[in-house]
Amino acid sequence: MVRIAVDAMGGDHAPTEVVAGAIEAAKQGDVQIGLVGDPQVLQAELAKHDISRLPIMPVPSEGVISEGDQPALALRQKPKASIVVATGLVKKGMADGAVTMGSTGAAMATAAVVLGLMDGISRPALGGPVIGFAPRTSIIDVGTNVDCRPSQLLSFAVIGDMWARVFWNIENPTIGLLSVGAEFGKGNRQVRETSELLTKSGLNFVGNVEPNEMVKGDVDVVVADGFVGNVVMKLTEGIGQASVDLVRERLAGALPEGDIESLTQELFEKTNVVNTHGGGPLLGVKGVSVIGHGRGEREEVKRAIEQAKIWHRLGIVPKLGEALTEVRSRAGVEE
Amino acid sequence: MVRIAVDAMGGDHAPTEVVAGAIEAAKQGDVQIGLVGDPQVLQAELAKHDISRLPIMPVPSEGVISEGDQPALALRQKPKASIVVATGLVKKGMADGAVTMGSTGAAMATAAVVLGLMDGISRPALGGPVIGFAPRTSIIDVGTNVDCRPSQLLSFAVIGDMWARVFWNIENPTIGLLSVGAEFGKGNRQVRETSELLTKSGLNFVGNVEPNEMVKGDVDVVVADGFVGNVVMKLTEGIGQASVDLVRERLAGALPEGDIESLTQELFEKTNVVNTHGGGPLLGVKGVSVIGHGRGEREEVKRAIEQAKIWHRLGIVPKLGEALTEVRSRAGVEE
Repeated sequence: MVRIAVDAMGGDHAPTEVVAGAIEAAKQGDVQIGLVGDPQVLQAELAKHDISRLPIMPVPSEGVISEGDQPALALRQKPKASIVVATGLVKKGMADGAVTMGSTGAAMATAAVVLGLMDGISRPALGGPVIGFAPRTSIIDVGTNVDCRPSQLLSFAVIGDMWARVFWNIENPTIGLLSVGAEFGKGNRQVRETSELLTKSGLNFVGNVEPNEMVKGDVDVVVADGFVGNVVMKLTEGIGQASVDLVRERLAGALPEGDIESLTQELFEKTNVVNTHGGGPLLGVKGVSVIGHGRGEREEVKRAIEQAKIWHRLGIVPKLGEALTEVRSRAGVEE
Repeated sequence: MVRIAVDAMGGDHAPTEVVAGAIEAAKQGDVQIGLVGDPQVLQAELAKHDISRLPIMPVPSEGVISEGDQPALALRQKPKASIVVATGLVKKGMADGAVTMGSTGAAMATAAVVLGLMDGISRPALGGPVIGFAPRTSIIDVGTNVDCRPSQLLSFAVIGDMWARVFWNIENPTIGLLSVGAEFGKGNRQVRETSELLTKSGLNFVGNVEPNEMVKGDVDVVVADGFVGNVVMKLTEGIGQASVDLVRERLAGALPEGDIESLTQELFEKTNVVNTHGGGPLLGVKGVSVIGHGRGEREEVKRAIEQAKIWHRLGIVPKLGEALTEVRSRAGVEE
């Protein structure tokens, strides 16, 4: 049994959908849920279900940190908030992973403070496949680290390498560095300095990869500063949505409605991976912490819990810790 | 008559297509062409046409700086190269603008050295509409300045403002700053510092604009670091190409070939603006210098000459110089 602490208070559809999703997960039989929230709220929600034979345990917390709060400040003002209590269970060894559908900022700040960060990671990273046309190409970071030192980008490469190994079973993943030209040395200062570190890292670094090439999926891992990675993710969504609208308009009347719908739906999914699949694990923190999509309902909650279970079983935290230390020493990074 | 110096030696299809395009332009009757190239080459090309009554004058140069050359070095080693001579004609007041289909790096280095840069511009910038879904939204810079100080981004805003005024006749263009969140203060250090300058600039600054929002075209000018702007341009092309391929594959057999072709062609053009239209003026240099697309043939050459003519007639260089000085002093920028 894997033990997952679920923040029942976070997310657009909390607590109702989160509690319902946690119950669905518990029915799988291989996961035990610690449901963290205000006691009266939990009681009211749990009363709607028959949980008598399910491995679900309510864990009391006080209040919630929401999207509008300034995360670091809220963490001090609400030390018993649901996300803090859920993450604390992981830290104390009472849970194998935490899951929240709530504020990304709050989850990150909490994970950094409560679980702690791995060597060379100054903020937790988020990443994974974000372009559906290249479904096995993981981009790291996609939004949490917007001012990266080259040594941080090196750490993202290690994280991506590990991701590709454990998730896709790729033996020696190719690592590319997102840049504006394919030649070595093309790019901004950050990219040029990172190239040098990656060359010495022992990772399977294949050089720069241009954004248009990245879409083809030839490289397993693409390393990017979180600002640029987030631009990639959001622009992909924007171009995708505009393309969907154009195709729908032009095909109207020319094809049966159902055919148009299935084509545009496919195009949408290829360009809106995060909206479709939602969330992901926080990378580089000393514990499993998964952020689900804020708009997610019970199905997404169940899927986020599933993710946390997988990450725990893969032993990603100790494996990643070791790899980071090794690669950074090989590249001569000391900070 | 506007006088344009055309680099006959630069570009994938030089000299044949460049010379042919210049001749086409000369036939319009309102432009005089200085055709710059190796004398024997020019002679051989011109012999193919009847130019007896056209305002075309060959101007001798020696050699060409190509894509593979390191621009700054090549500029010293080939001081009489075609791009250098063509740009020199502008500097000396013997031409109103220069046009090349050759190496972007060479054209930029030459323009910077020979024509000189305006206040606060440390490298010439490139920009314009690069997303076909937002055909009147100009993004500046899209690739030449990959390590920008906030004061450079302020200068890009001034350039974009001028562009929108003269090209689209927009009275008080809205200026957005490309970032990863819409709220003021969201983004990396560069964006946060630039926000403060833009707020004081007197420009119609509307705050941050996210990549997915930018695609909708609600903002007239989007300011971006050249690294990020280039990522935007190339990713748009990549997502567009992948979408075109998907749509073509799924529709095969379901619609007449011609209908599929016209839909995918439209989708391609919306996402490959630069491939479709090619090049643009170098912004922030003290003279008119237009770079056409390297792969361009006679039609594109003619269009690039047309562009140079327009920029000259609009008086963009003196107008931009004044605006830059004014806005920078208002924002308190001194460097």
